[in-house]
Amino acid sequence: MEYPKGIKHKEVHKKDITSYGNRGMSLEEDINVTNKYYVDNNIAFIYKKPTPIQVTKIDYKGGIVIKEAFFKEPSTTDYNGLYKGKYIDFEAKETNNKTSFPLANIHKHQITHINNIINNGGIGFLIVRFTKLNQDFILLGKDLIDYINNNDRKSIPIEYFEEKGYIIENGYMPRIDYLKIVDRIL
Amino acid sequence: MEYPKGIKHKEVHKKDITSYGNRGMSLEEDINVTNKYYVDNNIAFIYKKPTPIQVTKIDYKGGIVIKEAFFKEPSTTDYNGLYKGKYIDFEAKETNNKTSFPLANIHKHQITHINNIINNGGIGFLIVRFTKLNQDFILLGKDLIDYINNNDRKSIPIEYFEEKGYIIENGYMPRIDYLKIVDRIL
Repeated sequence: MEYPKGIKHKEVHKKDITSYGNRGMSLEEDINVTNKYYVDNNIAFIYKKPTPIQVTKIDYKGGIVIKEAFFKEPSTTDYNGLYKGKYIDFEAKETNNKTSFPLANIHKHQITHINNIINNGGIGFLIVRFTKLNQDFILLGKDLIDYINNNDRKSIPIEYFEEKGYIIENGYMPRIDYLKIVDRIL
Repeated sequence: MEYPKGIKHKEVHKKDITSYGNRGMSLEEDINVTNKYYVDNNIAFIYKKPTPIQVTKIDYKGGIVIKEAFFKEPSTTDYNGLYKGKYIDFEAKETNNKTSFPLANIHKHQITHINNIINNGGIGFLIVRFTKLNQDFILLGKDLIDYINNNDRKSIPIEYFEEKGYIIENGYMPRIDYLKIVDRIL
């Protein structure tokens, strides 16, 4: 069994479930529905990037069929787009943990990506759902990077989200109005 | 043989070659090298999105291996990122044609995407390389859409690029300095 670029079984499995599973009311689904609301109402244009896949075998007989491929470790984030002329970029993650968010969920290249976004004048952040607590937070990229640079822990305690982050209110339309938080940041 | 969403054999083949081939000095390679120069010199952060792939079969035995997948018709563009705080988004295409650029190269969803970018305050454009003429042009999204809305032709004549577009100079470092054109537009 060969995995590209040192990717671990568990990671790939998780990514796969997130992208192809059919979990009603998942964070991903809520964001997709919210983004559709934003675009339909001319509020913003924010979209999901394709899942990065490494293709290793293609069958050309009678057409193009990929016969072997692997989920790659993501080097960017899940979503990006435009709001009020500003570049928006974020990663969305769920955790079943009740007390902290495990940093294993975020890859090193994604931190670099968020750092590049910030340094070039964009707005980069995480959306983290604590599923068991029924709470969604925005944590700004700079606060994420500050935490990583100043702590040896392998997870971010929920207290840090409560102190530095922003709670996203859940509603009907839009389902999770994260741009309301971006308005406060702008 | 099943293709998702009416994608044609020829299209997929072309996409595949562009993404996985090893054509020295292709437009894609030139742009990637240029983008690396931009990020290394803190000029801009512009990156390639993953190729959209539809996964249809996964083998979970002993790990996650994709056993069947197809190249999807792209609904967004190849590249996006940030320059001077502005959202940049573009599609890059090569043609062997000497007199015009065939519009079959650009999908309907990509036009919608570019339109959404413009309407939300971003900078969207095409980079077209006329390979045989050794000339690279930028055509702004609005001029692309104007052409499509006001013409029945299935290709854009090179004269339109000469009139409305911008020639990108080729150099050593950066190889194709397309942000110099964006400076003129800003």
